[in-house]
Amino acid sequence: MELKLYYSPGACSLASHIVLEELGFPYTAQKLNLLEGEQRKAEYLKLNPMGRVPTLVVDGKPLTENPAILTFLGGAFPKKGLWPKETWEQAMLLSALSWCSNTIHPAYAHVIRAGRYTDDSSAQESVKAKGKEMFGEYLKMVDGWLAKTPKWMMGEQYTVGDPYLLVFYRWGNRNGFPVKSLANYTRHANLLLGRPAVRKVMADEGITLD
Amino acid sequence: MELKLYYSPGACSLASHIVLEELGFPYTAQKLNLLEGEQRKAEYLKLNPMGRVPTLVVDGKPLTENPAILTFLGGAFPKKGLWPKETWEQAMLLSALSWCSNTIHPAYAHVIRAGRYTDDSSAQESVKAKGKEMFGEYLKMVDGWLAKTPKWMMGEQYTVGDPYLLVFYRWGNRNGFPVKSLANYTRHANLLLGRPAVRKVMADEGITLD
Ligand SMILES: N[C@@H](CCC(=O)N[C@@H](CS)C(=O)NCC(=O)O)C(=O)O
Ligand SMILES: N[C@@H](CCC(=O)N[C@@H](CS)C(=O)NCC(=O)O)C(=O)O
Repeated sequence: MELKLYYSPGACSLASHIVLEELGFPYTAQKLNLLEGEQRKAEYLKLNPMGRVPTLVVDGKPLTENPAILTFLGGAFPKKGLWPKETWEQAMLLSALSWCSNTIHPAYAHVIRAGRYTDDSSAQESVKAKGKEMFGEYLKMVDGWLAKTPKWMMGEQYTVGDPYLLVFYRWGNRNGFPVKSLANYTRHANLLLGRPAVRKVMADEGITLD
Repeated sequence: MELKLYYSPGACSLASHIVLEELGFPYTAQKLNLLEGEQRKAEYLKLNPMGRVPTLVVDGKPLTENPAILTFLGGAFPKKGLWPKETWEQAMLLSALSWCSNTIHPAYAHVIRAGRYTDDSSAQESVKAKGKEMFGEYLKMVDGWLAKTPKWMMGEQYTVGDPYLLVFYRWGNRNGFPVKSLANYTRHANLLLGRPAVRKVMADEGITLD
């Protein structure tokens, strides 16, 4: 299997990038510069018509959307143990991945890309403010989930969902959200930073939590 | 297995409701009146902390988020054939379900719940207008997907993704989007209406496409 990930440093693609590294299977990572609009070039739009990262190209065929990429990588390498074995656990993890992609991620998009949600520039400040309020609430909800588990998001097992949560922790930290005061989420982020694959990918992307 | 679905007539829960009916396995359907705020009652928030439909309760345990519920129902009843057998097909379907829940559904939410995205009532009109523009674009994208398949969204096989697409077609139709001029999407909606389970659930919910 030939795996190629299109990513941008510190974007939501960080989750898939970490998972690829954890798998220990060869892959290539192709950086896109979002600020320069590389995600909207014609070549890339053929792979991902939405013009977003991540895209995972598997033997030449593109797969888009974080929950699908993470589930695919977890499921295709069952021996690596990044995907739960039990049907119900799988369903719960997929629920969490879905919520991350349809709720917490879009809230953040309202903060940094308010112009996508209204053409009226005078309305953008209030859209951004509401996005901040909601993103802050959702970070607290994640902290609440993590309060119920001793270790990883799904319990004892480290899964493809854990690095996805790190993405939002980092975004919060860099944008003035008091994530360090969220004790459970901070513990979880530190656990992740204890993993060689996480540190390697962050170094490769040239990012830190700050 | 005991299955109970919390739904609201014509809401996105219609997709899971149809899938339950297609499975031919006993289930109960519990209606919530969203206009009266039943989704925000304390009892329900214990099942679904976001206060949304659908929630599927499986042997007493709640599962939330459309992509997770649809995947669970498809995967748990493999003989019913509503979930693809091949890993790659599964990934492609999950990508589509994710996109429905994180892109087309939120665009519609900006149209009907603009107040959720800005506290400034004077800004709401522009948020709504942008939501309309985006929802309209996404309906056309779905039409484009369906142009590439002779029958169902994934090809010859009817899957849990097909009724999800019907939800957005119906929302478009009821809100002045010219969905009937989208030939492929209309063909797909009519194919769905040809299925007894779809007609039964729409009758049970007391809804039509209009
Ligand atoms: N629904 C997509 C969203 C992906 C997404 O929005 N990615 C962002 C980076 S975090 C992006 O590519 N932004 C570039 C742009 O919006 O132009 C998913 O969950 O994979
Ligand atoms: N992310 C959820 C969204 C569910 C959702 O927003 N459902 C709507 C009905 S289509 C709802 O319950 N709305 C009630 C409310 O917002 O108060 C999913 O995909 O399941």
